[in-house]
Amino acid sequence: MDLFVSAPTQYIEVDGVSFAYRRFGKLGGVPVVGFQHFTGTLDNWDPIIMNGLAKQREVIVFDNKGVGNSGGVTPDSVYAMTQDAIRFIEQLGITQMDVLGFSLGGFIAQQLAVLRPALIRKIMIVGAAPQGAKALHSFPDLIQRAMQLAPAERFLFIFFTPTEASREKGRAALARLQWRVEDRDKATSDAAVMAQLKAITAWGTDAVSIDVTRIKHPVLVVQGSNDDMMDSSSSYTLFQQLPNALLSCYPDAAHGSFFQYPHLFVHEALYFLDHY
Amino acid sequence: MDLFVSAPTQYIEVDGVSFAYRRFGKLGGVPVVGFQHFTGTLDNWDPIIMNGLAKQREVIVFDNKGVGNSGGVTPDSVYAMTQDAIRFIEQLGITQMDVLGFSLGGFIAQQLAVLRPALIRKIMIVGAAPQGAKALHSFPDLIQRAMQLAPAERFLFIFFTPTEASREKGRAALARLQWRVEDRDKATSDAAVMAQLKAITAWGTDAVSIDVTRIKHPVLVVQGSNDDMMDSSSSYTLFQQLPNALLSCYPDAAHGSFFQYPHLFVHEALYFLDHY
Repeated sequence: MDLFVSAPTQYIEVDGVSFAYRRFGKLGGVPVVGFQHFTGTLDNWDPIIMNGLAKQREVIVFDNKGVGNSGGVTPDSVYAMTQDAIRFIEQLGITQMDVLGFSLGGFIAQQLAVLRPALIRKIMIVGAAPQGAKALHSFPDLIQRAMQLAPAERFLFIFFTPTEASREKGRAALARLQWRVEDRDKATSDAAVMAQLKAITAWGTDAVSIDVTRIKHPVLVVQGSNDDMMDSSSSYTLFQQLPNALLSCYPDAAHGSFFQYPHLFVHEALYFLDHY
Repeated sequence: MDLFVSAPTQYIEVDGVSFAYRRFGKLGGVPVVGFQHFTGTLDNWDPIIMNGLAKQREVIVFDNKGVGNSGGVTPDSVYAMTQDAIRFIEQLGITQMDVLGFSLGGFIAQQLAVLRPALIRKIMIVGAAPQGAKALHSFPDLIQRAMQLAPAERFLFIFFTPTEASREKGRAALARLQWRVEDRDKATSDAAVMAQLKAITAWGTDAVSIDVTRIKHPVLVVQGSNDDMMDSSSSYTLFQQLPNALLSCYPDAAHGSFFQYPHLFVHEALYFLDHY
């Protein structure tokens, strides 16, 4: 059964704002909460990954403030997005979670780990970078180039490498994002996209305020060999700075490393969550 | 049942020289052949790792020429060691193998991949570096310091970090190397150690002759966060240069990364061998 595709979209009000989320999978343990990438909504999670995690864990994914079907206005800083996420999670009554942060969600994961360490058991960070990553200085230019492409080509450009092998896996991933036909999410508004763009760029240019060497949680850092957006070596730096991190890097892969190797990712993630 | 500990030492004559080896595990597939580290013999493989691999694969470990119970004289270059290994493998009648190369064995794995690509299906390289790694310029000094330590402390110094958490896992690994009581290997002679020392140092100082970008095999590169002997970042470089490599790095770990996380390594290795 496809747990992810069949999970209904639910809503919860947090400080007068309606948050859209889906909750599915095996009950009874610490849930895994997913933090989504730039422009991404509930429908941008890979069903293979979601179903793989859900076989062993309860999974919660949500639209942060102003994104997709959630109400309110998207703030323009990772710090404020993290505060919004904390309020949502508390409103759900969750007292401890494992975090899966993808790209912008991986920034929020780092911010969350220093703001509310006790709320987190373990952290998975995919396709991200620590604060101050110089590659992000080119983020607006890269997005401007991406926006000139048709949607499918844009997806391949951002998440996959130019090799035919990578692009083929990209097209398969894109098709999986259409497995869910009903009860889909709304696309993220231009206003939200602009606010996220500002937040992501600032992550690379603002003064570093998060000391990742103080994040004591077990962390699984996942990255592709050729993530030009974040600069793949940023993940090696993050691994070196975090005191308790595993690093896993995938070949001929760009920003969407776990889209390209979803079964490998699930295999590593479940071991990390349950046995590491 | 402990397949590794109960495997008898066998001998085969290759060009008039007796090679010591052990062969165990699940028959029927491509065997995994282990290439051992500096000074290491048949008894320096971790039983947890050997048994873990042997549950799903046939495993062969051997003493290269002049090492442990093997006869002959150890040559002083990786190239010659690789030639010796090829002759041994051919003598066993093996036409295809998966390679597990640890440290010096990881150098031989790279040399082997370019010399005899068709002999290899997949490659695992633990705690190694590509040719020309500058860290190896200090290898003789590091070994001189290590030799002044008592054997147990030397093992911890070389393979583990100075943290108590790492050293504790080091003592556990050292105890595992004593699980096998009977039919143990002979310690490697001083002459063999000196030849290996020269070969390892030359790997870092000689002109680069191996173009790892041409190694098309799937490779799993494993390294600790703090391998001062090889410089951990050498493994990141190796991953970046190899066209089809996975990289897996472990926290608070030095040269003996897979001694420190043997179950994690087995989990990753079996997936890599069977499903990647």
